[in-house]
Amino acid sequence: MIASPFGDVRMRGFTHRMEVARFQDLVRSHSAPLDSEIVPVVEGSDRILSESVVSLVDVPAFDRSAMDGYALRGEETFGAGVYNPLTFKVVGEVTPGQVFDGKVGAGAAVRIMTGAPIPEGCDAVLMAEYTREEDGVMTATEAVTPGRHVGRIGEDIRRGTPLFDPGRRIRPQDLGVLASIGWSELRVFRRPSVALLITGNELVKPGKSATGAMIVDSNSIMLRALVERDGGRLSELRHLSDDREAIREALLTVAGDLVITTGGSSVGIEDHAPSLIREEGQLLAHGVAMRPSAPTGLGRLADRLVFLLPGNPVSCLAAYDFFVGLAIRRLAGREEGWPYPCASYKLKGRIVSQIGRVDYARVKIEQGTAVLVATSGSSILSSTTVADGFVVVPQDSEGMPEGATVPVWLYDAPVGSP
Amino acid sequence: MIASPFGDVRMRGFTHRMEVARFQDLVRSHSAPLDSEIVPVVEGSDRILSESVVSLVDVPAFDRSAMDGYALRGEETFGAGVYNPLTFKVVGEVTPGQVFDGKVGAGAAVRIMTGAPIPEGCDAVLMAEYTREEDGVMTATEAVTPGRHVGRIGEDIRRGTPLFDPGRRIRPQDLGVLASIGWSELRVFRRPSVALLITGNELVKPGKSATGAMIVDSNSIMLRALVERDGGRLSELRHLSDDREAIREALLTVAGDLVITTGGSSVGIEDHAPSLIREEGQLLAHGVAMRPSAPTGLGRLADRLVFLLPGNPVSCLAAYDFFVGLAIRRLAGREEGWPYPCASYKLKGRIVSQIGRVDYARVKIEQGTAVLVATSGSSILSSTTVADGFVVVPQDSEGMPEGATVPVWLYDAPVGSP
Repeated sequence: MIASPFGDVRMRGFTHRMEVARFQDLVRSHSAPLDSEIVPVVEGSDRILSESVVSLVDVPAFDRSAMDGYALRGEETFGAGVYNPLTFKVVGEVTPGQVFDGKVGAGAAVRIMTGAPIPEGCDAVLMAEYTREEDGVMTATEAVTPGRHVGRIGEDIRRGTPLFDPGRRIRPQDLGVLASIGWSELRVFRRPSVALLITGNELVKPGKSATGAMIVDSNSIMLRALVERDGGRLSELRHLSDDREAIREALLTVAGDLVITTGGSSVGIEDHAPSLIREEGQLLAHGVAMRPSAPTGLGRLADRLVFLLPGNPVSCLAAYDFFVGLAIRRLAGREEGWPYPCASYKLKGRIVSQIGRVDYARVKIEQGTAVLVATSGSSILSSTTVADGFVVVPQDSEGMPEGATVPVWLYDAPVGSP
Repeated sequence: MIASPFGDVRMRGFTHRMEVARFQDLVRSHSAPLDSEIVPVVEGSDRILSESVVSLVDVPAFDRSAMDGYALRGEETFGAGVYNPLTFKVVGEVTPGQVFDGKVGAGAAVRIMTGAPIPEGCDAVLMAEYTREEDGVMTATEAVTPGRHVGRIGEDIRRGTPLFDPGRRIRPQDLGVLASIGWSELRVFRRPSVALLITGNELVKPGKSATGAMIVDSNSIMLRALVERDGGRLSELRHLSDDREAIREALLTVAGDLVITTGGSSVGIEDHAPSLIREEGQLLAHGVAMRPSAPTGLGRLADRLVFLLPGNPVSCLAAYDFFVGLAIRRLAGREEGWPYPCASYKLKGRIVSQIGRVDYARVKIEQGTAVLVATSGSSILSSTTVADGFVVVPQDSEGMPEGATVPVWLYDAPVGSP
């Protein structure tokens, strides 16, 4: 008998576990960026541009002063110094937003403020620091060359300049540039909507206390935050008992660009999700060569991806980070890599792994070294709050020896100042 | 005549510029974390805890199965193997959320699913993979030691365990842990509310196009995104003309834990903000030894900090990052350091600076080297969108030579996967 690679594994165990890299490729091949939407520029921070931006205007649209001081003809200041002050007749003033009325002649200067248009006839600005003014006469104690402290038309952005490419993750200053060129709206990739189906008779909803044989569902609240971190948003959250028909109905009616189920993804008799996906859609993968998270599945149903995540919270977190986040970031048009920074640390103690599977080993940084977190079962969520990050032991490795320098993916972004 | 260090500098120029580090210390001395507020756990992601969290319960509150399989007495499986299968009578089943009714005797096993409570009389779980069941009889082809695959009461979190300290920035998995111990609400530091007063006769509001001598205000939209990035929120945004009394009235009536003004902070005749602060409150600093951003000021008014930022957008961005962000993160109870990652790059070309001032030099990463962005005046906001990050040239440095390895603060967080 040839076993179907993703046949019914209930109470039999996985006959096959897919390699992590292959599982990820499968995710990639089913997750292209969604369509785009238009948002006001003011809401654009951290969104992903789906179009090119080219400026249709010059910024500024006029020559302007880069300093507070006096606009004049630079040539006329030549020779000025503390021991050779030169005087100019102050014929007026121009402040930002105004245009100086008239042409400035020889021996004259116009009081000018940063950002104001350079009056006709002037070609330089002498900084206020090198002047004094009394009774309509300005005394200059420094020379300026023509063009000095004049910001030319288009100095910031020239008309026709390509500014941003599609896929740009919008920085705060990008919004400033977009506003500068007169944009009020942006076309960005739509945020994927994600439905969460949390299964398990043993679960009480977050915010309640667990009694008897019950535990609190910790996955929904964690997954929601992860989904939002990666640019998605929650479309629906349903808590379901381990009732096959209720889960089927939820899978068929839930709204979202992507569906995540938790629990019921393994080889127990109440692990309905994989066989339901096989009945109603296509089970692309079930079982992955990774610890934790082995009982992870992937399917397609009604033209969208369905991720079957283990109910154990560490497995759920790791499977999210290896597979679901990848899909959400791709749907959102983001760079697909992890949002975790990576840094190298010397390993204290060793990490033992099995050839043939990837290990997600939580570590704590202690005195500059990475130390494996001792209690690290897939049900020990607190191992991921005690840890500072994790080491990924590759599939072809038996582990890492004491003293090895290992890359650690850090849960928290580091901060620093010069 | 002894000049007051922060006297009226209009049309005179700064007589004194404060060192960046001293300015930052001044900011620190006036910005302690705000009071706290209570939020639902589900909204707690990325907030900063203001209290300690100690678990009052064991998670789980019972011994549970870590696998799908059969609960039994481990001792009774000793000797089992593929060539020596042992049989057990299946006396029932227990799934998560249920409690097995009765005590399991010798030679018996209970079908058990991951997360279900271990029935009385059993001390181990044999994985489904090593069993087969037919007509109420389970055949075991592997032995398990007592205790195997049993998650003990409190294995995740033991009652009385301190879980989080104040100041913790809450991770997605932290929310899971908090839900697990039955928390529905959290005490977190309040998000600072920030008022923006944007001054300038030359400004049109973002979303409009600029004509004549006007330009679009790019600072408000950029600052809003920066404030939100750092854990603050906008309380008010007012666009004001360069009208002294209008600005005075706004400073006195605006709502917020912190106020930012842009424009009118320098030495021009319409630079009202510093003298207004001196009249109505306390001007703590005006002028900083930094390029750009020299015309930055700091004051206190009605018991809150007022930052006077230059209107030139690069100056505004740099002054925000050096001073305002520091205050907002401190008020928010966050770590005060920059949210920018830092990486070392070899410098292509050199950076020239002046001893006595800090330089904020924008660089582009090209083929693994840092290259100074050529057009980098303080009014060229596009220099910060073309750049990948910036180099901070310290006050005591004349610059950095070609080929030097320099730390670059990156505007975008890098992404990666193993």
